[in-house]
Amino acid sequence: MRVGDQHYRTVWVADGEDGVVRIIEQTKLPWAFEVEELRTVDEVCVAIRDMHVRGAGCIGATAGFGMYLAAWNKEDLREAGERMKATRPTAVNLAWAVDRQMRLLADAPDPVPAARDMAQMIADEDAAACEAIGTHGLGLIEAIVAGKRGGEPVNILTHCNAGWLAFVDHGSATGPIYAAHDAGIPVHVWVDETRPRNQGARLTAWELAGHGVPHTVIADNTGGHLMQHGLVDLVITGTDRTTFTGDVANKIGTYLKALAARDNGVPFYVALPSSTFDWECRDGVAGIPIEERDAGEVVEIEGQGADGVVSVRLTPEGSAAGNYAFDVTPARLVTGLITERGICAASEAGIAGLFPEHREGRG
Amino acid sequence: MRVGDQHYRTVWVADGEDGVVRIIEQTKLPWAFEVEELRTVDEVCVAIRDMHVRGAGCIGATAGFGMYLAAWNKEDLREAGERMKATRPTAVNLAWAVDRQMRLLADAPDPVPAARDMAQMIADEDAAACEAIGTHGLGLIEAIVAGKRGGEPVNILTHCNAGWLAFVDHGSATGPIYAAHDAGIPVHVWVDETRPRNQGARLTAWELAGHGVPHTVIADNTGGHLMQHGLVDLVITGTDRTTFTGDVANKIGTYLKALAARDNGVPFYVALPSSTFDWECRDGVAGIPIEERDAGEVVEIEGQGADGVVSVRLTPEGSAAGNYAFDVTPARLVTGLITERGICAASEAGIAGLFPEHREGRG
Repeated sequence: MRVGDQHYRTVWVADGEDGVVRIIEQTKLPWAFEVEELRTVDEVCVAIRDMHVRGAGCIGATAGFGMYLAAWNKEDLREAGERMKATRPTAVNLAWAVDRQMRLLADAPDPVPAARDMAQMIADEDAAACEAIGTHGLGLIEAIVAGKRGGEPVNILTHCNAGWLAFVDHGSATGPIYAAHDAGIPVHVWVDETRPRNQGARLTAWELAGHGVPHTVIADNTGGHLMQHGLVDLVITGTDRTTFTGDVANKIGTYLKALAARDNGVPFYVALPSSTFDWECRDGVAGIPIEERDAGEVVEIEGQGADGVVSVRLTPEGSAAGNYAFDVTPARLVTGLITERGICAASEAGIAGLFPEHREGRG
Repeated sequence: MRVGDQHYRTVWVADGEDGVVRIIEQTKLPWAFEVEELRTVDEVCVAIRDMHVRGAGCIGATAGFGMYLAAWNKEDLREAGERMKATRPTAVNLAWAVDRQMRLLADAPDPVPAARDMAQMIADEDAAACEAIGTHGLGLIEAIVAGKRGGEPVNILTHCNAGWLAFVDHGSATGPIYAAHDAGIPVHVWVDETRPRNQGARLTAWELAGHGVPHTVIADNTGGHLMQHGLVDLVITGTDRTTFTGDVANKIGTYLKALAARDNGVPFYVALPSSTFDWECRDGVAGIPIEERDAGEVVEIEGQGADGVVSVRLTPEGSAAGNYAFDVTPARLVTGLITERGICAASEAGIAGLFPEHREGRG
């Protein structure tokens, strides 16, 4: 999407620049916009492990380009792939992109152009899936604006960053928002800051600002009040993992917004490329393990100080802190799922209707 | 309550120190524990306006002592009272304490001891009300611990600071917690950090640590997940204003926790001295105006840096921020109200049963 007046993806190889992969260095956002050049698999591993790139789609695409760098530098492809996979072992898209390249390159007569074309295809597919999500979700926003007086914006609340920064382009939850904005529909986004890591305040706010979409950052506590007073027309979030029954594991706090949406009759949609479906898991609350992360993420926060970016402590020395990364929103609270194939109910039947090829072998 | 091995109130006059009111300077917490001496009404006005003291009960008691300083310094009492009232015009307890002193002092032959005794009475009444809330709420905790295996703590979630720092002693929401802890019942408190002003992470965590109560600071997003997994036995919050029908206006985000409690069958109690009832307001969501505060409280946060306490910016320069201070939790989500007279249902009938003197003249 746009950063100022230029279009960017999160990861790319520029024309005529063989052997150089460029990424947006996301740990510097929103304080600085830096494009980082990656020339070796080692540099790709650092970028993934230290979260210069993050988000399922973005990590997968970066790993795809990492295999191109391995071929370009004549590294041992299998060993390079294993090294990349080890940087974030739970990132499904990372292993998937590496394995897809490995299968191709096993038989490729000339691995460099083959790997580059495949990396580009992985990136393009990710962008196309998000663009399709945007097109399908646009219909929801058009229906809301039709019921408004002329010129009133559609107010959409989102949580965390399921934006283009987490993918290659467009984003999942933001896909419909960008599609509506680009179609001239007035939208306004309530951006949950998303403690403790503040992906909303840092990343979603930054990318919406870059593309020119009106938005307001709010404390995570605020959404319920806004919904009580008719200030939210639609909630759209992303998901890290979705059961084949429609339960949604997403950033901690998503469940609270779904409860508030239900209590106030606000539609609550989850946008996802179908790669995030877990075709084995029936019960999200019981079955999806919730990562407990370093309490330091709650205790300290990074921000822009007078002399640069610094971390400050938020809690007393004598107090423990807890950091649960995700929660599970039960399907009963989800109005619908916006996928690259269309919108379906968050239910086993609804999902199976759009993805019949997964009908077999469910848990 | 205890700070280390010493007992403190939030505001007091020490024996033999006529003309000196001492307060805990709360803007310095939790980074530094400082006792500030106030000797003039001007100093009291600064302390109230700049939130060196905050919380309804604490502000009221401080204003009561402020009138004693006015008498001690032979200031014009009416003018001194008006000046104090103007520092925080919406603080009901402030005006109430000043007016109570004015009525007394109009006829007092010797205003200095009269004002001092009245100030002490206002403070003692506040502490006694919170202690009574603690005694009544203790029964709820005892009932929960009776159903637990030996030694397992009762897990209580609270939001914002309705602790002893907001009153003179004991606190409202914390009253039952301190009572249980002091009775030897194992309790553990989940402390919502309470963005944007972080009263939980700063004040509630600090006072629980000082009194030795086990606790864990969490992002405000976390409570729903904890309740889904049986990790919360009881929620107790305070309230800024409660309708006579049981709707509760409290710090932004309280409503979201009430929704999660209802969805998971967790009891949700609100603790309050009866002075926070609004005997005129029937419908909290429609009738209680919600203050919008300076967006800077969302944009910037104060914390302990390497070289002292600093503010850092959390959001991009190009992003707006919104700051709604309170939300309203409808009575239907409140299991009960813990008052100084006992526990009642959050309903017109329940409240009237405990406070029959207010039966007349309701809105």
